[in-house]
Amino acid sequence: MDIPHYMQEMGRAARAASRQVAASSTAVRNAALLAARDALDAARDTLAQANQEDLQRGREAGLDAALLDRLALTPARIDTMLAGLEQVAALPDPVGEISGVRTRPSGIRVGQMRVPLGVIGIIYESRPNVTVEAASLCLKSGNATILRGGSEALASNRAIAACLAEGLRAAGLPRAAVQVVETTDRAAVGELIAMPAYVDVIVPRGGKGLIERISRDARVPVIKHLDGVCHVYVDAGADLQMARAIALNAKTHRYGTCNTMETLLVAATEADALLPELAADFREAGVELRGCPQSRRRVPDMLAATEDDWFAEYLAPVLAVKVVEDLEEAITHINHYGSQHTDSIVTRDHARAMRFLREVDSSSVMINASTRFADGFEYGLGAEIGISTDKLHARGPVGLEGLTSCKYVVFGEGQVRR
Amino acid sequence: MDIPHYMQEMGRAARAASRQVAASSTAVRNAALLAARDALDAARDTLAQANQEDLQRGREAGLDAALLDRLALTPARIDTMLAGLEQVAALPDPVGEISGVRTRPSGIRVGQMRVPLGVIGIIYESRPNVTVEAASLCLKSGNATILRGGSEALASNRAIAACLAEGLRAAGLPRAAVQVVETTDRAAVGELIAMPAYVDVIVPRGGKGLIERISRDARVPVIKHLDGVCHVYVDAGADLQMARAIALNAKTHRYGTCNTMETLLVAATEADALLPELAADFREAGVELRGCPQSRRRVPDMLAATEDDWFAEYLAPVLAVKVVEDLEEAITHINHYGSQHTDSIVTRDHARAMRFLREVDSSSVMINASTRFADGFEYGLGAEIGISTDKLHARGPVGLEGLTSCKYVVFGEGQVRR
Repeated sequence: MDIPHYMQEMGRAARAASRQVAASSTAVRNAALLAARDALDAARDTLAQANQEDLQRGREAGLDAALLDRLALTPARIDTMLAGLEQVAALPDPVGEISGVRTRPSGIRVGQMRVPLGVIGIIYESRPNVTVEAASLCLKSGNATILRGGSEALASNRAIAACLAEGLRAAGLPRAAVQVVETTDRAAVGELIAMPAYVDVIVPRGGKGLIERISRDARVPVIKHLDGVCHVYVDAGADLQMARAIALNAKTHRYGTCNTMETLLVAATEADALLPELAADFREAGVELRGCPQSRRRVPDMLAATEDDWFAEYLAPVLAVKVVEDLEEAITHINHYGSQHTDSIVTRDHARAMRFLREVDSSSVMINASTRFADGFEYGLGAEIGISTDKLHARGPVGLEGLTSCKYVVFGEGQVRR
Repeated sequence: MDIPHYMQEMGRAARAASRQVAASSTAVRNAALLAARDALDAARDTLAQANQEDLQRGREAGLDAALLDRLALTPARIDTMLAGLEQVAALPDPVGEISGVRTRPSGIRVGQMRVPLGVIGIIYESRPNVTVEAASLCLKSGNATILRGGSEALASNRAIAACLAEGLRAAGLPRAAVQVVETTDRAAVGELIAMPAYVDVIVPRGGKGLIERISRDARVPVIKHLDGVCHVYVDAGADLQMARAIALNAKTHRYGTCNTMETLLVAATEADALLPELAADFREAGVELRGCPQSRRRVPDMLAATEDDWFAEYLAPVLAVKVVEDLEEAITHINHYGSQHTDSIVTRDHARAMRFLREVDSSSVMINASTRFADGFEYGLGAEIGISTDKLHARGPVGLEGLTSCKYVVFGEGQVRR
């Protein structure tokens, strides 16, 4: 198989389809989503069979239990996919909004119109439900998609793609609006991320290694985050009961998520009162603490943190703890060791709260709330295709609006430039 | 000289300075701009002397007259630089705006805060006035800058940089908030565009060759456009006097600008009435026409256009002319041959006007106006650091807001995630 040719053809078809999708009405795109839902519902047996093939091949290839679990399309997961399509269909359409129109001295009226990005490439691992989720968000926002899922899920993804194609057909949209890469050759990824003529942006979903490789080699913009080294800073004079509740939630609500707290910073004035109680909370929750010398003076059974701990994204029941002199040191620590993901201050002081908000250079900055709220659904975006810690374009949780951009529109009545 | 080390140190200093600039008040940044203005005004003799050195070296190196002209810092150009600093100081500060705050079911309030990008690298050719213009826009928007101008202007840029440093000093801002690369070694550019830890975005200003090289090799985002292949489409039933005025202005107001029309598209129904008159207008203006067979049937002395003409950015008194069947063909032509810069329709029909606006995939799309309006000042941005034809982040003319981005801010009262 000639992979470059195969991918170029796919890209060309996606670009052509993207024009039609962008020009289609909200009603047509919603109809496609709902028809795809019905097609998936009617194809439960076919999906189960295709998924059994993938699981069988996975077991033979010696995939571990966690991977096999993510690969499995249980009836409950199919239900979730169907519900997801309904929810996306019900979301407001971001496309076409015209904002900020002002009349200029020349007489022209200038504003901005929200339009789809065009063609979005999604690269992900072996979770077949991502196929439906990503395709539906891209279609809703007026984009064409090329999906490249993990090779272990190929049969499942093909079966899902057939249902999505049925939805597009029913609504009169081109089949190439949603395409699944049907080769497991890794060279396909290399092509997909290096076709600026056909692909406008890449959204990788998966482990850090995958995302690093893609970011390094991509010739088009990549919407991504690498790490979630999130902090909670307990300020001098904070409500310590609030601080305990937020710190415990930010660490223990879920260990494996990117918005989980990985380092706790405590103002020196609060260390005596807070750390022993909090250490007891965390001990009970089974969280291992690794502290700076000042923290260990308050909680002697804490392990000693090394420089590496301040950079660490544990994704596990482990927490680094550091006593800092003041807000200044907390902000400096976060901007140096953090990953620009999500950081929160617990404070009663208004001026310091606002300074933290301004000066912490992260995609989400919070006052008196758990870092676990950094999430498209919690923020009210209705959906989330990923989280970006980059500074250009969408920052933080990326919903439908992050899959669009604004162009300038000018309304004239024959004006020419003097 | 160890160029990588030199640039890394500059980057490190810029990153540290960017934190201070971002945290500074609007008043402090404005004070720095106005103090720099005064320093430049007081240093006119020094500037003239430094510029004479550059011009002398340029003449010896055999620079052509156009380059020497762009290099010259005349008293009038110094006046323009001073006025520019005053204007930028007077612009509203985009930084710190908090928008869209909504209360979520969890009780947290979520909004977005506009913040500086951080460190901006500017790469430009031998126009010393760009040093002041770019530095002032970056500083106003709360960013640190690293400026790498053409080697021919090094002495002038050094003299200007000293005045900008004086402005920063007077306002209490760190000197590294504006740094000029003081080596003519080209390797410095290679380093500057490949330090994602220290530089957040690159804005290249100059010829297409320079911008292509930078875009290809950059490891950070680049705000740029390569071509301006702009179109005017005269729709069926258009006001032909308006069409003549707009077409003539879009082509002849200035030949060398990126928003100048390069191809005129005419609906078949209007070709008989419009083309002969318009050809006379253009003949009088000294513009050479290159047409499709249908255009040449109406204007027999027109040269024949080749496929290359539809892609051409002439930047000269040359215009490609094509008769198209309808709006559909016009949109397809523009999206295929254009450069996603600026395109305009002349029409009386509302539905077709709105379809053109939606479906032409360019950074500026206009109805009944000259393409020459695609400009930061004409759009009311107050300033322009460049024009972007990319789809992510700022699209079209890029003003102060394009040098910032929005992060999420969350206001809580102790909320934790259930």
